[in-house]
Amino acid sequence: MNRIEVEKKVLNENQVLAEQLRERYSRDGVFCVNLVSSPGSGKTLLLERTLEYMDPQARVAVLTGDLQTENDAKRLARFGFPVKQIITGGTCHLDAKMIGKHLEGWELGNLDLLVIENVGNLVCPSSYDLGEDAKVVLLSTTEGEDKPLKYPSMFFKSDLMLLTKIDLLPYLPFDADLARENARRVHPQIEIIDVSNITGQGIDRWMKWLQESQQRKRSASVLGISTGN
Amino acid sequence: MNRIEVEKKVLNENQVLAEQLRERYSRDGVFCVNLVSSPGSGKTLLLERTLEYMDPQARVAVLTGDLQTENDAKRLARFGFPVKQIITGGTCHLDAKMIGKHLEGWELGNLDLLVIENVGNLVCPSSYDLGEDAKVVLLSTTEGEDKPLKYPSMFFKSDLMLLTKIDLLPYLPFDADLARENARRVHPQIEIIDVSNITGQGIDRWMKWLQESQQRKRSASVLGISTGN
Repeated sequence: MNRIEVEKKVLNENQVLAEQLRERYSRDGVFCVNLVSSPGSGKTLLLERTLEYMDPQARVAVLTGDLQTENDAKRLARFGFPVKQIITGGTCHLDAKMIGKHLEGWELGNLDLLVIENVGNLVCPSSYDLGEDAKVVLLSTTEGEDKPLKYPSMFFKSDLMLLTKIDLLPYLPFDADLARENARRVHPQIEIIDVSNITGQGIDRWMKWLQESQQRKRSASVLGISTGN
Repeated sequence: MNRIEVEKKVLNENQVLAEQLRERYSRDGVFCVNLVSSPGSGKTLLLERTLEYMDPQARVAVLTGDLQTENDAKRLARFGFPVKQIITGGTCHLDAKMIGKHLEGWELGNLDLLVIENVGNLVCPSSYDLGEDAKVVLLSTTEGEDKPLKYPSMFFKSDLMLLTKIDLLPYLPFDADLARENARRVHPQIEIIDVSNITGQGIDRWMKWLQESQQRKRSASVLGISTGN
C-alpha cells in the first residue's frame, strides 16, 4: 500500500468514527464546535473569555488539544466546567478517535455545548472531521491578510471566522478589510466577527453566534433535518 | 504496510535525499538555512529585510514554500536575487524531493547562501530534513510564551530562534524573558535574537549570524569537519 492509499484509509477510518460522534451529539442534543487556527491566534484565551461569560449552570465542556503540556486544560479548568487535555504526542491534529476516547466518562446527555480546541496548525486539522456541527477558524490581525488564500482549505471548511487581536490594529500594518475579502474569496458564505480577547470587543457577538447556532440545530432536529459537515 | 511503517519509509526516503542535498551544498560551498515558524510570524518580511540589506552582488537565492499562491515569490523577486515559489498543493511541509526539483536550473556553484522559507506550520516541517546547515525558528511576540513547550520538536531542532515583532511588546501581555526561558528549557544551546521587521531592530545581528555561520562552515570545510543536522 503506498502513502496516498494509507492516507485515504486513515481519513476513511476517521470519517466513520466522526459520523458516529455526530450521531451521538445529535441524539444527546449537544452542539459541537471545533476551534482551529495557527499557534498563538488566541484559541485558549477566547475559551477563557467564553467560559467566564457563561452562566455557571451552563452545560458546557471543553476538550483541548496540544502536542505537549497540560497548560491549556489547567488554564481552563478554573472556570468550573469539565475540561480534558488531549496530548497528541507530536501528531499535528486531533482525530475522531482521540475525541471518542476522551469523551469516555462524560455523560453527553448532560451537555448542551462541547467545544474542541484543536492543535494550533492551519493545515492538517482541516482534513480531520471530528463530528462537529461547526468549524470556527481564528485569524489574528498579527498574522497578515493573505492567510485565507495561503491556507484555503481551513477557511473553506469553516462556518465562522473570528478576526482576533482586533485591539492591536492601530499598531499593525494590517488591512482588516482585505483579510475579510480574502476569506470571502475562498468561502463567500463565511461569517466573520471581529474579536479582542483583551478588551472584550466582539465577545458578545461570538456568544450570540454560539447560542443561535445551538438554537438552529435544535429547531432543525425537531424538523428532522441534519446539520454539520 | 500500516500507517507508521509508511510514515517511516517516507521519512527514510526523505533522509536519503536530504543527505544528497547536504553533500551538494558542501561541495559547492553553499550555506543553507531552513526558516520555520507558525503562519504569520514574519518569515517573508524577514526575508524582504534580509535581501534589502544584502550587497546587490551577494550570491544568495531563495526557495519559498506555501500550500497555495505565488505571493511570497513575487514579494521577494523585486530585490533582484533568484527566487522560486514551491507550491505544495495542500502538503503541510517542504520535503527534500521538492527542494531538489526546484533547484534544477540553478548553478549551486554560483551561490554562497540558499534560504528556504518553509510552509507556516510549527509541527510537520520539523520532521523533514532538507539538507540544511541550520534551522532557524521564528517566534513572534504575539504568539504567547508557551509555544516552545507546546511545540518542542521545532525548537529543539533549531539552531537559532528569532523573537520577531519585538516592536509590539509595549502593547502585549507577553513576557519575553519567559519565552526565552521556555525555548532554552527545550534546547539549552539555542541562540536567540530579538528582531523587528518593522523598525529594523536586530536585523544587523541576524545578518551577522548569517555571515558568521557561513564563515564557520567554510572553516570547518577546510578542516574536513562536516556541519548541519
